[in-house]
Amino acid sequence: MQATGIIVEYNPLHLGHLHHIKQTRKTTEADCIIAVMSGPFLQRGEPAIIDKWERTKTALEASVDLVVELPHLFAVQHGDYFSKGAVETLANLHVSSICFGSEQGTIEPFLTAHKTWEDKRDSFDSILTSFLEKGNSYPESSRLAYEAIGISEIDLSRPNNILGYSYVKAINRYAPSITPETITRVESDYHDETIEGTIASATSIRKNLHKYGEITKKASETLPTFTSKALQAYRDEKQVWHSLEIYFPLIQHLLWTSSPEELRMIQGVDEGLEHRLLKAIDVSSSFHDLMHTVKTKRYTWTRLQRLFIHLLTNIKKTDSRLLEKPVSYVRVLGMNDRGREYLSQHKKDFEVPVVTQLKQLEDPLFTLDLKAQKAYLYPLSGENRVDSYRREKMPPVFY
Amino acid sequence: MQATGIIVEYNPLHLGHLHHIKQTRKTTEADCIIAVMSGPFLQRGEPAIIDKWERTKTALEASVDLVVELPHLFAVQHGDYFSKGAVETLANLHVSSICFGSEQGTIEPFLTAHKTWEDKRDSFDSILTSFLEKGNSYPESSRLAYEAIGISEIDLSRPNNILGYSYVKAINRYAPSITPETITRVESDYHDETIEGTIASATSIRKNLHKYGEITKKASETLPTFTSKALQAYRDEKQVWHSLEIYFPLIQHLLWTSSPEELRMIQGVDEGLEHRLLKAIDVSSSFHDLMHTVKTKRYTWTRLQRLFIHLLTNIKKTDSRLLEKPVSYVRVLGMNDRGREYLSQHKKDFEVPVVTQLKQLEDPLFTLDLKAQKAYLYPLSGENRVDSYRREKMPPVFY
Repeated sequence: MQATGIIVEYNPLHLGHLHHIKQTRKTTEADCIIAVMSGPFLQRGEPAIIDKWERTKTALEASVDLVVELPHLFAVQHGDYFSKGAVETLANLHVSSICFGSEQGTIEPFLTAHKTWEDKRDSFDSILTSFLEKGNSYPESSRLAYEAIGISEIDLSRPNNILGYSYVKAINRYAPSITPETITRVESDYHDETIEGTIASATSIRKNLHKYGEITKKASETLPTFTSKALQAYRDEKQVWHSLEIYFPLIQHLLWTSSPEELRMIQGVDEGLEHRLLKAIDVSSSFHDLMHTVKTKRYTWTRLQRLFIHLLTNIKKTDSRLLEKPVSYVRVLGMNDRGREYLSQHKKDFEVPVVTQLKQLEDPLFTLDLKAQKAYLYPLSGENRVDSYRREKMPPVFY
Repeated sequence: MQATGIIVEYNPLHLGHLHHIKQTRKTTEADCIIAVMSGPFLQRGEPAIIDKWERTKTALEASVDLVVELPHLFAVQHGDYFSKGAVETLANLHVSSICFGSEQGTIEPFLTAHKTWEDKRDSFDSILTSFLEKGNSYPESSRLAYEAIGISEIDLSRPNNILGYSYVKAINRYAPSITPETITRVESDYHDETIEGTIASATSIRKNLHKYGEITKKASETLPTFTSKALQAYRDEKQVWHSLEIYFPLIQHLLWTSSPEELRMIQGVDEGLEHRLLKAIDVSSSFHDLMHTVKTKRYTWTRLQRLFIHLLTNIKKTDSRLLEKPVSYVRVLGMNDRGREYLSQHKKDFEVPVVTQLKQLEDPLFTLDLKAQKAYLYPLSGENRVDSYRREKMPPVFY
């Protein structure tokens, strides 16, 4: 059996994702589609709207065959580390190819661009540094630096092209035997804030859900029925859809009881940011307040959100060393018969433990996954918190 | 002007306390009664039911002339440190005497007992150690050790005698120019759990308040009208009466995201207790659950509660060094004209800063007071939390 990997968050899984899965199966003719999915917290520094177990179910409903968890430490990082974690996880499962959605829609320009970058790497790095020093954000500086070294075959200001390009870089560096492939992303721009039509960005769908506290007609038209059901069931059972706002009392407490020295140990608290945070928190009544008080051109929204996730999950700067090491396990969240068959066929060849039960693993990277999962449960009521944590110790979802 | 000091928590101020204040004025003929009061958290490791500002108002209504705050680090400690902090604070204000309520009711037996203890101090210490090593709790071991060295003139198993005795010890050691005095305590035993009559223990009153979520007729009969009003106003405004239970989501989060090494840095986490805590927290849905899972004969209720307060307020073992130093400031919470007059008369003689505004002071002990106050505010809603913190920066209560 041959497998193709996809890299997903499914926050929540919408009709655009469904299209991506169908197209991937068609294009790659893979026997097995393996999704590496972020767990409790996501790349742009947010808690997932519903937990990873419910999102795993939607992935399996959408005909993904095997869902595995992207280790938390890699899940909440800028594109390069995020891609490293995702690609290495899929490589650990011996996928033949990775297929991502992009605005570009064809793989050749990605490969050419990567070749150009490799040839001009030194000058790229110094150009990037100079843009950063001028006070540009990291994404903006990268875009300008790519332009400056003459990458013209692909628009690296489009969000899915940027992400796809970082997958290609990671594949080249960490798992060159994997073939990168891409399909045209039909989802609307993920920066879109309002729902337009049935193919909407996950961001706009979440905004709509949080705003109305229910699944509006507009939102439901963008979602497969099983996603709407999963969202509703989670809300009915746990009384919540997660957003950073509901973690605010905790964020305020942590900032209020930490010394500047302690804050400086948290990943992302750099350049004296701890003082800015400690000043802002005294006058903030909500997460929204806090972000608007702290944000500047230099400290982008995403960078700050990631920092707050690191604070919530107690991820230290010293944990960063694990980002440089290879991903050392695969945590299975769910599978169907095909996924199970794939695992049993390849089991003997895997170089790292493929974990289906919590107790099977002692690994510092995995300890952080558990910590993140526990931190995620904060907004739930007492009983729900303990029950949900118990879920963590149970076998994967079978579908 | 001459001042008498009293050492109080007023959690909440009840008719027994009112009697204590009246008797103190009568017995000592003091011009000015100064109360040193615990702030947000109390000696037995609990948050105060309403905040220190509201409790200060009740003290002033009860005719206390000056209310100052016992530094947080000393407020949540066993009797010896608690007494050191309280006595030193009152000594900083040059009180002539300290008058406490006790079951004993006369001061001579305390002084005789203290003399005996001083003479037999070495054997006392080794006897105490041997009782502790047999697995007895600290209070129980002390009681047995006092008995063993022949202190018979006073019953050191009665809670207010124990506390009074530790005041006498602290006065002798840290401020021997202060005269200790005592009056008979009319309050019922503070271990009483149900209200009987109009003189009830603060514990039984709090139990009643928390159980019914309102001021019952039974509770109101034990309280001056102004205390009932303060309790009601606080609940109306902040939607809460504080108890450890409402801090539980935070306690669980802190335990769930801390490593054993980090927990071991918290004051009170000794003898491998961190492992016991980490095991218990996975199966606890409430603070009540947690306490019942962790508690043993050795780890008493009070000791564990204090530990959880240290966790909430992020008090480290390294902060303990401040317990050995003299109290280095006095924070004024409230006063009437007489209190104000006393302060202005003696101002020039004070050896430490007497603080009426937050910005006047940079002191590591005071930093912990602020941290504790912020941690206390956790259960309030966003706006109330920031408003309440703003109160901290305002002048004391004038009455």
